Amino acid sequence: MSKSYWIWHPGAFELYHSMLLHNRRTSAKTVTENGVKTRKSAYYPPMWRVDGPPHNAELMKKATIDNEEVIELFSNTDDCAIRVDGKKYPKNTKITLFPGEHTVELMGFKAESFPAFYIKGNVFNTDRTWTTYNNNCQPNRHAGQSELYTDPHDNVEIFKFKYEKMLPVSKKAVNGGVLYDFGREKFGKIIIENAQDGEYLFSLGESYEEALDIDFCQLCVNATVKDGNFTSVPVAFRYIFVPNIDTPLDISLDFEYLPLETRASFECDDDLVNQLWKTCEYTMLLNSREGFFDGIKRDRWVWSGDAYQSYFVNYYLAFDKEIVKRTIRILRGAEPMLKHINTICDYTFYWLCSIWDYYFFTGDKGFVFDIYPDMLEVLRFVEGRLSPDGMFDRKSDDWVFMDWSTFDPAGPMCAEQMVLCKSYKSVSLCASLVGDTVTRERTEKQSDYIKEQINKLYWCEEKGAFIDDYNSGRENVTRHANIFAILFDLTSEDRKKSIVKNVIYNKEITPITTPYFEFYELDAMCSIGDFKYMTDMLSSYWGGMLRLGATTIWEEFDPTKNGIEHYEMYGGKYEKSLCHAWGASPIYLLGKYALGVYPTDVGYSKYEVKPNLMSFKHFKGAVPTPNGTVTVEMNADHVTVLSKIDGGTLVLGEKKYSIEKGKELTVAL
Amino acid sequence: MSKSYWIWHPGAFELYHSMLLHNRRTSAKTVTENGVKTRKSAYYPPMWRVDGPPHNAELMKKATIDNEEVIELFSNTDDCAIRVDGKKYPKNTKITLFPGEHTVELMGFKAESFPAFYIKGNVFNTDRTWTTYNNNCQPNRHAGQSELYTDPHDNVEIFKFKYEKMLPVSKKAVNGGVLYDFGREKFGKIIIENAQDGEYLFSLGESYEEALDIDFCQLCVNATVKDGNFTSVPVAFRYIFVPNIDTPLDISLDFEYLPLETRASFECDDDLVNQLWKTCEYTMLLNSREGFFDGIKRDRWVWSGDAYQSYFVNYYLAFDKEIVKRTIRILRGAEPMLKHINTICDYTFYWLCSIWDYYFFTGDKGFVFDIYPDMLEVLRFVEGRLSPDGMFDRKSDDWVFMDWSTFDPAGPMCAEQMVLCKSYKSVSLCASLVGDTVTRERTEKQSDYIKEQINKLYWCEEKGAFIDDYNSGRENVTRHANIFAILFDLTSEDRKKSIVKNVIYNKEITPITTPYFEFYELDAMCSIGDFKYMTDMLSSYWGGMLRLGATTIWEEFDPTKNGIEHYEMYGGKYEKSLCHAWGASPIYLLGKYALGVYPTDVGYSKYEVKPNLMSFKHFKGAVPTPNGTVTVEMNADHVTVLSKIDGGTLVLGEKKYSIEKGKELTVAL
Repeated sequence: MSKSYWIWHPGAFELYHSMLLHNRRTSAKTVTENGVKTRKSAYYPPMWRVDGPPHNAELMKKATIDNEEVIELFSNTDDCAIRVDGKKYPKNTKITLFPGEHTVELMGFKAESFPAFYIKGNVFNTDRTWTTYNNNCQPNRHAGQSELYTDPHDNVEIFKFKYEKMLPVSKKAVNGGVLYDFGREKFGKIIIENAQDGEYLFSLGESYEEALDIDFCQLCVNATVKDGNFTSVPVAFRYIFVPNIDTPLDISLDFEYLPLETRASFECDDDLVNQLWKTCEYTMLLNSREGFFDGIKRDRWVWSGDAYQSYFVNYYLAFDKEIVKRTIRILRGAEPMLKHINTICDYTFYWLCSIWDYYFFTGDKGFVFDIYPDMLEVLRFVEGRLSPDGMFDRKSDDWVFMDWSTFDPAGPMCAEQMVLCKSYKSVSLCASLVGDTVTRERTEKQSDYIKEQINKLYWCEEKGAFIDDYNSGRENVTRHANIFAILFDLTSEDRKKSIVKNVIYNKEITPITTPYFEFYELDAMCSIGDFKYMTDMLSSYWGGMLRLGATTIWEEFDPTKNGIEHYEMYGGKYEKSLCHAWGASPIYLLGKYALGVYPTDVGYSKYEVKPNLMSFKHFKGAVPTPNGTVTVEMNADHVTVLSKIDGGTLVLGEKKYSIEKGKELTVAL
Repeated sequence: MSKSYWIWHPGAFELYHSMLLHNRRTSAKTVTENGVKTRKSAYYPPMWRVDGPPHNAELMKKATIDNEEVIELFSNTDDCAIRVDGKKYPKNTKITLFPGEHTVELMGFKAESFPAFYIKGNVFNTDRTWTTYNNNCQPNRHAGQSELYTDPHDNVEIFKFKYEKMLPVSKKAVNGGVLYDFGREKFGKIIIENAQDGEYLFSLGESYEEALDIDFCQLCVNATVKDGNFTSVPVAFRYIFVPNIDTPLDISLDFEYLPLETRASFECDDDLVNQLWKTCEYTMLLNSREGFFDGIKRDRWVWSGDAYQSYFVNYYLAFDKEIVKRTIRILRGAEPMLKHINTICDYTFYWLCSIWDYYFFTGDKGFVFDIYPDMLEVLRFVEGRLSPDGMFDRKSDDWVFMDWSTFDPAGPMCAEQMVLCKSYKSVSLCASLVGDTVTRERTEKQSDYIKEQINKLYWCEEKGAFIDDYNSGRENVTRHANIFAILFDLTSEDRKKSIVKNVIYNKEITPITTPYFEFYELDAMCSIGDFKYMTDMLSSYWGGMLRLGATTIWEEFDPTKNGIEHYEMYGGKYEKSLCHAWGASPIYLLGKYALGVYPTDVGYSKYEVKPNLMSFKHFKGAVPTPNGTVTVEMNADHVTVLSKIDGGTLVLGEKKYSIEKGKELTVAL
C-alpha cells in the first residue's frame, strides 16, 4: 500500500483554517450594563477580505494498474460519490479494480466547511497526484494534501495541534482577587473545575501589570461556570487575574501548540546569547501554527511581511516545509485578488519573492507547480497597478508600508521598486522551472529594466546613496532602499561600497528602529562581513529585553522607556505584543553567519559552511537542511563540521575543503 | 418603529441557498453489494461552479435622529459586534442613541453559513439602506434583505417554505410491493411512521411506470427506519413504489412549497384551455422556490434560459418581485466570473436582458442600483470573449446552446448576436438609470453597431431571411434568429414582412420542436397578430399532454410517441421532466395577448389593454401589476375592463379609451 493522504481542492484546507483563525481575534471592551461597568471580550474582524474555501470539489486520477486493488472512499461529507470508469458508488463501498486502465473520479460538497476524500490503495491511494476537473474553473491542478492528515479517521476540519495540560506556576491574592502566573507566555484554553457556578472575569496579561489593569487589559475572558466547569476559547497570556474572588479557582490550561521539531541548535560561551537563542526559539514556536503568526496575543493573524522573515528563521530552526506552504496559501486567499495581500503593496511583493526562496531552500518543485497559476494571478493584479512603463506606482488605496519609518512620501518609493524588482526575478525563476518560457522572458526583462531604472532614477551621486524619491527634489536618504540594494544585489560593487560608507556607517542617517526592518539591516551588515553590529545588537537590543525579564521576544524594544511604558504601542496601554515572531531573527543570523551554513544550489544540493567566530570564544550548533543537519563547532583553534548530506564545502578565507557526508571534518585555524 | 429586515452582505443569502439547492440533486444508481443488486441514491454534483457566500460581513449606517431610540443587535452568530460612534458592544445589548448624528457599524463572521443582523429601531432599523464598508472589496453597496425575513426570531439559514401534511390518494399491492399515488406531482419529505425497523427502498416516479421500474427509476430514497420512523430529504414524485413489503407502510408527505400568491386568472369557454391554465399554474408554482427551477424532479437547478421565460410567466401570474431578484442573484454567483452562466453563452446574455425587463415590469429602481456593479462584471467577462470588433465569437470552451436544434455550426451564430445585441441594450438602459453616462453611451453605440452588423452580415436577400452564419457559404436558415429579429425589433419593417413570409409561414424551414423555443416563436407570432398558431398549439401540443393525463406540464411532448416512450430524454428511460417550468408559457401568452394587458412605461405607470378574442367565445381573466390587478372580460359583443391602477388605455383597433382606476369600463364591439 502506498501512503495515503486526505485530499481536497487545492487551497481549500488552508482557506478554511485561515478563515477561522483570522476571525478568532477579540479585544476587551469596557461596557456598562445596568449601571455596572465591566470588561467584555468583543469580536474583532480581520482587516482584509478573508475568503472561505470552495464548498465543492471534484478530483480524478487516471492510471493503469498491474495488480488488482480494492478501494473504498472515505469522506467528511455524505454529499459525495466515487465514479469508477463511469459507474457511480456511494462512499464506504468496497470497489475492486482489476488490472488495466481506470479512471476514478471523486465528487463532493460540504456547506459548513469543505469536502475532503481519503482512499487507501496502491496506485489509487489519495495524494497530490489526483487532479481537479470539470466545474471548479481551476482544472488540472494537483489536489491539496497535508502531512498532518494521513489517517482515514482524521478530521481535516480540526487543525491538528497537540495539547498538554498545564498548571499555573504560582498564584497570589492581590487587589481583592487572585493573580495566576503560568511562568511564560502560553496559548490554549483556560479550564475551570470544581468552581461555584456564576460569572467570572479573567483579565489576561502578557505582563502582570496588564492582567491587574482590568480597565485596560487587551484580552479578557467572560467565563460562565456551569455545573462547576468552564472551558474558554483558546487565548494567549502569561498571567490571569480573576477579580472579586476570595479563594483561588481551580484553573488549568490546555496548552495548544504545533509539534514542530526544532532541528537546529546554537550554544556558545555567552550565556545571554544562549538564553536569547532559546527565547527566540520559544517565541517562534508559539507563533508557528496554521501558518506563521505575527504575535500570539493581539492579532494572531498572518501578515506577509512578518511571515517572509519567519520563513528564513524556519529554514534555520525547524525547516518545516508544511508550515511555509500553508502560510503561502493562507496569504494568497482566493480569487479575485482585488487588494494587495494584507492590503500592503510590499507584502504582495514579498509573497512573490517567497516562492522562489522556498524552492531554493527546499528543492520542492511540486509546490512551485501547484502555486504557479496563483502566482500569475498575483502578478496580473500587481501589473494592473503599475505605471505605464511597469514600475511601482503609488495608488490611493494601497498601503505603502515598508516600515514604521518616515519616508519621502512624494511618489513611488525606491525600496518598493526594489522588492518589486526582486519579485519579478522570483516569478521569472519559477516560470523557468515550470517551463513557461513566455513569462520567464518577459518577467526577467522587466526585472532587469526595473533594476536599471532604479540605478538611473534613484541614485544620487552627490550623496552616494539611493534616495527615497526622485520627484520631490528633496533627495531624502533612508536606510531601507540602501539595505535592499546590498541584500538583493541591485547595484554595482562600487555603489555598494559607497552605500556602506555614506548610509550604513553614517550616523546622520536615521537609524532603523524596528526589529522588523532590523532583520534586513543585520542581514545586509553580516553579508558585507560586519558582524560586530549584529552581536552588539544581540546584547543591547535583545539582551535589553532579557535583562528586563522577557521570556519571549517583544514586538519592539526601546531601552529609554521605563516600566509599563514598554507595553504601550499603537495607542494602547498594553497593545504591544510581547511574543512577536519577527524578534526571532537571531536564529537565522547566527545560523547563516556564525555557523555559516547556507545553500548555494537548490535544496542544499550544494552548500557552503563559512563559519565566523564573531565575538564568541567558541560555539557549537546545527543547521537543518531537507535531508539532515549540518553541525558546526568553532573556537579560535579549529573548526569541526559534521554533515548528514552531500554537496558541502567548508570555506575558510580563501581556502575551501570538501565536506564528506557523515564524516567529521576538522580544520585547524 | 420602522419595518426591520434581517440584513447581510449583498448576495450572501442567495449564494448560500443557491449552494445548498444546487447540491441537492441525486440520481438512482444500481449497485451490487455482497452479490445483491440494489438501487442507491447517489450525490449528483452541479455542472458549473457554485459559489459559497462570504462568511464575513460589515455593514454600516450613518444618520441623524431627532428622537432618542434604543437599539439592540440580533445576529445568527456569536462572532459579531456592534460599534456605535466608535464604541463596541456585544449583541443583545440595549444601546440608547440620543438625538443627533450617529454611525452604527455591524460586523460578524459565520463559518458554517453567512452572518446576518437584525435591529429593531426607528431610523437604525436594519434594512437595505445599510451599506457595506471596509474589507469586503465591495464597498458602498446596499445590504441584502428579503421580505421573507422580518422577524428577529427568523433563521435566515433555513429557507422559509411552507409545509402541509399530505396523504397518498391511493395505494395498491403490485409486483410484490405497494404503489402509492399522491394524485399529482409533489415535492417534500417522505415520512414513515409506525413501521418495522429496517431498510426500505422507495422507488419514485413522476409516472407509475417509472416508480415500478426499479432498475431505471431516476430517483430513489434508501430509507433506514429506526424506532418505527423515517424522514427523507425533500424529493419530487407523484408515485412511490416500495418493493418487498406485504402490508402498506404508514407513508405521508410533508409537502414543501413557496407560498406564492397567484394574482392572475384566466377562464374561457374552452374547458381544455381552462384546465391547461390551471395545470400551467401548478407546474409554475412547484418550480418556484429559492429561485425559478427548470424542473422539480431531475435537476432542480436554476438555469438562466429557463428562468428568463419564468420571469415573464411570473409577471403574468404571481408578479412576485422577490423570486425574480433571488433568481437573478443565484444565477450571477460570485466573483470571479470565469465561465458563462450555466456555462452557456446565450444564458449569460439573457441574464443581462433580464435586469432591464425586471425594472420595466416592476419599476424597482433599487434593485438595478444594487445589481449594477455585478452587471458590469458580467459585461466585462462577455467583452473579454468577443471578437475584436465586439461581436459574438465562438470560443472553444463556450456552450453555444440557443436551442436543441441543428444550426450551421461554422461560426458565430446570428441568434447569439441578436441576444448579445439585446443585452447591450439592457446594460445601456440600466447605465442610464444609475447615471453611468460613459457606459450608457458606449453600450448603446455597441448595441446599434451589432444591430447594423447583423443586418449587414447575416441578411440573405435571396432567401429573404437571416441566415445562421455568413462564413460557411451554406446560407442555412433556421427560425431562431428570424423570430428574434421580430421579437427584439432588430430589423426593418420590410424585412420583418419578408421573414414572416419566407420563414415563419414557410413549412420548408425546420419547425421549432422544443417548448423552450416555442415560447419565443409563439410570442413573435402573437406580436404580429397571428393568434391561431398559438391557440392551435394550446390544443395540439399542450392539450395533447392533458389528454394523456398529464397533471403538470412536461419538458417536451411529441404526439407521435407512445406509452413510456414519452418519458425518455437525454438517453435515460425516465429522464424527461414531467413538471417543467418552461411549459407554463400559455399563462404569459394568454395574459399578454388574449387579455391583452402589458406595460408601456416603467412599472405599469402606463399600460395598455388590447384584448383579442382569438378562437374563444368569451373569456375573463386578471393580470397582476405592481399595484393591483387589471381584470378583462370579453365576448363577441363587448369588452369590460376593471383596473386597480392608474395609467391604462384600452386599445380596440384604432380606437383608444382611457381606463379609470377602480371604475369598470365597458365598450361594445
